[in-house]
Formats: sequence, structure tokens, C-alpha cells
Amino acid sequence: MINIEDSIFNVLKTCLSRYEQDFLPLHAPIFQGNEWAYVKECIDTTWVSSVGKFVDRFEQDISDFTHVKHTVATVNGTAALHMCLHVAGVQAGEEVLTPALTFVATTNSISYCQAIPHFVDSNQHTLGVDAKKLADYLADITEIKQGVCYNKHTQRPIRALIIMHVFGHPVELDEILAICQKYNITLIEDAAEALGSYYKGQHVGHHGLLSTLSFNGNKVITTGGGGAILTNDTKLAQRVKHLTTTAKVPHSWEFNHDEVAYNYRLPNINAALGCAQLEQLDDFLVKKRQLADTYQHAFKDIKGVSCIIEPKNTKSNYWLNALCLDSNNLMLRDKILKITNEQGIMTRPIWTLQNKLPMYKECPSMSLDTALLLEKCIINIPSSVM
Amino acid sequence: MINIEDSIFNVLKTCLSRYEQDFLPLHAPIFQGNEWAYVKECIDTTWVSSVGKFVDRFEQDISDFTHVKHTVATVNGTAALHMCLHVAGVQAGEEVLTPALTFVATTNSISYCQAIPHFVDSNQHTLGVDAKKLADYLADITEIKQGVCYNKHTQRPIRALIIMHVFGHPVELDEILAICQKYNITLIEDAAEALGSYYKGQHVGHHGLLSTLSFNGNKVITTGGGGAILTNDTKLAQRVKHLTTTAKVPHSWEFNHDEVAYNYRLPNINAALGCAQLEQLDDFLVKKRQLADTYQHAFKDIKGVSCIIEPKNTKSNYWLNALCLDSNNLMLRDKILKITNEQGIMTRPIWTLQNKLPMYKECPSMSLDTALLLEKCIINIPSSVM
Repeated sequence: MINIEDSIFNVLKTCLSRYEQDFLPLHAPIFQGNEWAYVKECIDTTWVSSVGKFVDRFEQDISDFTHVKHTVATVNGTAALHMCLHVAGVQAGEEVLTPALTFVATTNSISYCQAIPHFVDSNQHTLGVDAKKLADYLADITEIKQGVCYNKHTQRPIRALIIMHVFGHPVELDEILAICQKYNITLIEDAAEALGSYYKGQHVGHHGLLSTLSFNGNKVITTGGGGAILTNDTKLAQRVKHLTTTAKVPHSWEFNHDEVAYNYRLPNINAALGCAQLEQLDDFLVKKRQLADTYQHAFKDIKGVSCIIEPKNTKSNYWLNALCLDSNNLMLRDKILKITNEQGIMTRPIWTLQNKLPMYKECPSMSLDTALLLEKCIINIPSSVM
Repeated sequence: MINIEDSIFNVLKTCLSRYEQDFLPLHAPIFQGNEWAYVKECIDTTWVSSVGKFVDRFEQDISDFTHVKHTVATVNGTAALHMCLHVAGVQAGEEVLTPALTFVATTNSISYCQAIPHFVDSNQHTLGVDAKKLADYLADITEIKQGVCYNKHTQRPIRALIIMHVFGHPVELDEILAICQKYNITLIEDAAEALGSYYKGQHVGHHGLLSTLSFNGNKVITTGGGGAILTNDTKLAQRVKHLTTTAKVPHSWEFNHDEVAYNYRLPNINAALGCAQLEQLDDFLVKKRQLADTYQHAFKDIKGVSCIIEPKNTKSNYWLNALCLDSNNLMLRDKILKITNEQGIMTRPIWTLQNKLPMYKECPSMSLDTALLLEKCIINIPSSVM
């Protein structure tokens, strides 16, 4: 009888045979549209840098796609997260709730505000912040004083909650927003992985006061490096634009800047790539769903492992497909990672829990039972668009 | 008799007639080399993002050009400055000496470390930090305690000095380095504008413990947006590379990060542009000198105004040419800016002194007599390579 690790390898090999490639990356970009034409236009016109028509167009195109009113393009997703927390008013020494199970950029963005990450547990279906556990936890550890939510144990204000739509699967947005409203905590959506993901029929990014996207090379669409801030709040959008462009006061020639600000602009040449990519997004999403279907069908009868599927009431972009090992097979994770990677099928575990990283070890945290389990059982598998 | 403002306008028009353009920008990039070939290679191979051969090559090419041992490419010059101060050990609440006469990015980078800018005056020939004034000032206001230089008035440590090579003209590096050594202050060179500038026959960037470049669209060469950190210190170079790439600990698949770090990577597609631009830099520098010569020759006999020329012992890249109004003609500055800009010749004043910006008004400062004069008398004129 064939063992689980070999049967997983064989199924992956079969599912991926149509790529006809010796090495299968986890997620490679694909450029089959107007990428060359738009980038060449930047070079030919010399508008490659901090202003140019593609930045404006890319921002408008993202808003048109997500139906979030305002988009501000940024140099990457990390910069976008930093700006969201900054304009949300997160102050030094305050706490920001954030999933333990996320990429380190989410957590670092809190540090950039000299604020303190406070880790929360995940839901085993959404892989993101668990609404029920969050509600119970906040009821237990917080008190509201003059409208501000305080951590009773540390006496620090809890100013914001970042949620992250892991692998593109939306979290329980309605429930989580209700909790934030009850406790007067600002909700920020880290939708870095979730362009093209829907919650109850609406694109993600509408529940957060501000939300972020990433266009890193491994994302659904790429600008080389890049990100964006989305918000339905016009004043906040203007403020974010001002702060990401050195807070320069408009004038024909004078260099006046009215607050400490940032150079977080997306260059026009990167935005040009993004405009071309965005034209193909609908097609990418169809193909990503097809690959997810292929995996789900192929792994249906394989014992000891299952595919992560989109949560109820959502339509995921299936950015990264993931396998979940049954609880009695967790010891196989590293063996499977080794076999697949050695044979040219790139696989990855999910991120190390943030509270285990040396710089975040001392941060406050709720008990992280589900996140700990997910850390042990998840294996990401190749998910590029064909 | 023709007035000064009209004669300046006429001379500019004559000097710039060979561009045969209706609108003359201050500094536009020029792409006549392998830009398209290299960028296309990125798109064809899909290596557009955070790793790729052009990033490595660009870093090596910059080191080969400047002879500074190590180069780490960054997402822009602001990020580069922030990282220099960070790895130089600048702590919250410490002071960093910095010219009042600089672009706001220099000053903001100090704020990102929660440190306090402390403004110093400029030299009327170099336009950068004045060595003599700095020496006198430090002798007056500092005391050394256990090897650390303290501001006697604020009781705060003075940890670093940033110097900026304004418009590409190198400051008095030997004298300034000697002062830094005497007071145990770390020297950082902001060479954003000075790629291709030499001090006593050596490229700038060797005197600072760390130095920075910018490849913004208006610089001598451009990557769209981009920057670099230069250092001859191998350990610091490794640390900067680690910190600008999320401090990920190398592993075949695990996501471990060992300190709070940044996503300050230059994308490969931007580096590709930079590699092509760098191949043309020698030619650009020759042409920039020719234009500087043209201006200097043409303005020689114009009363009331002179050209800023490279300081003694230096060879400037003449990134931006600048006129200097005589002290009795300062009231003409805005009139000249208006006339030229209205007629398609883009001109600019130098930056507003940093201590006048609202967020930096309360910062410590020496008397800024020369900087105040330079602020009033300088007008930058079109300086693109033809």
C-alpha cells in the first residue's frame, strides 16, 4: 500500500502535468497582455517615475474593480499597511490586534508605529481571525473608558484590529466589523492576497476603514513591487495620498511640506505593468478556480489530507492552494515539503506564528490553539495561472 | 537698457535652443541604451519582482563605478537614508545633525528613527554643510561624556551627521570627516544627487560610514523609483541587506525572521532600467559638463547673476545647474521664476529651509546665515542631458 506522502506527491504531479515544466514555482506571474506595450510607452515618453498617467489609471482601475471608492497606489503592501495604521491614528505604545498566523509584514507595520502587536487566534475554516474567539476574548480582557477600549491587563488602549484574508479566503467580515464597532476598535483589512475575493457578493476591502493590497511578484497580479490602500472615506484617501507623497503643499515652484511624511509612491513604470495585469484579472481568476477545482477533485479520495476550500458566503480568488494534513499525520509535513521541493514541485508551510519570532515573543496574545494547529497541518502547493 | 530678469530669460532661451522643445523640464530622463532590451527580458522571463539577476548586477555595477565596496539597492533614496541611520544605531530621542538646506527626505529619515534633526548651516561655495562653522559650533555646544557627544543645551546625544552633496557638488569631506571623528559622530553621506561626482579624485560615498544614492526620475540616472546604500564595511552591508529584505533567516521553506525589518527591496524590473542607464552614465556626465560650460560661458557677462560652479578639489556631476542672484537682486527671484515657468522654461528655487517647515520648527539649530542667503538667491535651471 502506498504511503500518504507518496500519494500526495503523485497527485500533485498529475495535477501539474499540464504545465509541462521541470520546476513548478509556488506562484509565478504571467504576462500575456499589454505589459510590453504599456511599459514601452513609459520608456518612450520618459514618464517612468513618480508621476504619470498609469499611476492615475491604475488607481482608478482598482477602484472600478473592487468598487471601493478610492485607491492610492503605494510602493508595496508593507508601506500600505504602515500608512493605514498611521492615518487610523495608531499611537506609540498602543496595542493593535492582529492574527498570529500572517506574513511578518502585517506585524512589522504595527512596529513602524511604535505600537504593540497583540495576537489573536484563527478560525479553522477561514484561516483568518476567528470572530467568536475574538468576541469572547475582548469581553474578558477589555474595559471601555471614555469610549476607548483598554486592555485591562496592560492598561494600554487597543486602537485597531488588522484582519488578513489568508490565501485569498475572506474572514467573517460582518461579525468582525460588529465586534470592532462594539469596542470602538478601527478595522483594517490586509487584503494583500485577496484581490478578486468576495464576501457575500461584495469585493473584500469595504468593511475596513482602510484596506490594503499587494502586487508583489507572487500575487494574483503584479507590478514588480507595489501595493495599494483602499478606502471609501474621501478625506482619509486624500490624507493617505498626501502622506505617501512627502506631504508637499501644492505650489508652482515652492518646496513646502506640512508634516512628517513618506516617499511611498508607486513609480509609473510599475503602475503600467499593473494596468496591463488588471486587464487580465478576470481571466486569471477563472483559471485559478479551475486549478483549485482540479486539486479538490484529485485530492477528494486521498486519505489523510484535504484541500482548504473557500469559506461559506465567500468567493475566494484561490490565490494559493493549500493542503491540510489530518491531525494524526502532522509529523509528515516536513517529509512532504522535502520530497516535493527536491523534485521540482515547490511547496511551502504556512508562516511561522508571529508570536514565536524573537522580536514578538513578549507581545500580548490570546491562546492560539487553532493557529498552532494550522501552522502544523498546512502545505501550500503550486498555484500559478496557466 | 534691458533689465536683469529679461536678460536671464534671453540667455536661457539661447542656451536651450538646441533642445528644440516647447517645454524644457528641469531634469528629464533619457533612454537611448538597453533600457527596453533589459526590461523586456524581465517581462519575458517573468522575473520582475523582488529577486532577479538585474538587482545583483545593478548593485555590482554601482560598486564598480563608485569603487565603494558594497551596494545594496533599495526602493528609493528615502528608504536608503532611513536604513543608514537605523544601522548606524541612531536611537529615539537622539539628535542627528543635518543641513537646513536640503530636500525634506533627508530630514524625514531622521524622524523615522524618532530622532531629532539638528540643523546646521551651509557653505556658500559647496552649498552643503560648512566645515568651519560646524567645528566652531560643536566646540561651543557639545561635551563628550564616556565617548558620546552630547548637546549641552538639550542633554541629548548627537549620534550622527548627514551631509548632502547639493546639486552634485561635493562638500568638504576631509574636514567634515575629521570633525566627526573628533566628536565621535557617525558620518552619513546623502549622495542622492551626486552619482558621478568626485572629491579629490575619488567618487563621493567613501567618507561616510554609509552613503546613499537616489534613482528617482529626476536624477542623473533613473530606475523609475529607486535608491542605494553604499558602504565599505562588509558587516554593515550584510546587515543592511538583511534589514531591507524583511530579516528573513535563510531556509529552504520556513518563514523565520529575526528582527523588526523592512520591505525596502528594489524590484528587478526597476533594476533592469538602472543597469541600462548606468551603461550610459559616462556619456551623460560628459554632456552634463558641456551644458554647465555652456551656461557658465553664457552667463559670464550678465550683470547681477552668476552660475554656481563646482567647489575646489572636486569634480561635480552638475546634476542641476543653478544661478545665483547677487545680493542686491534677491527681490527678482520670484519674478524670474514666474517669467521662465510661464514661458515653458522650467526653473525652481532651492528648497525651503527645513527649520521653516511646520513639523521641524522647534528643532535645535545653529544660526543659518548662509543657508538663508542661498535660499533667496538660487534658481535652478533646465539640466537634462541632450
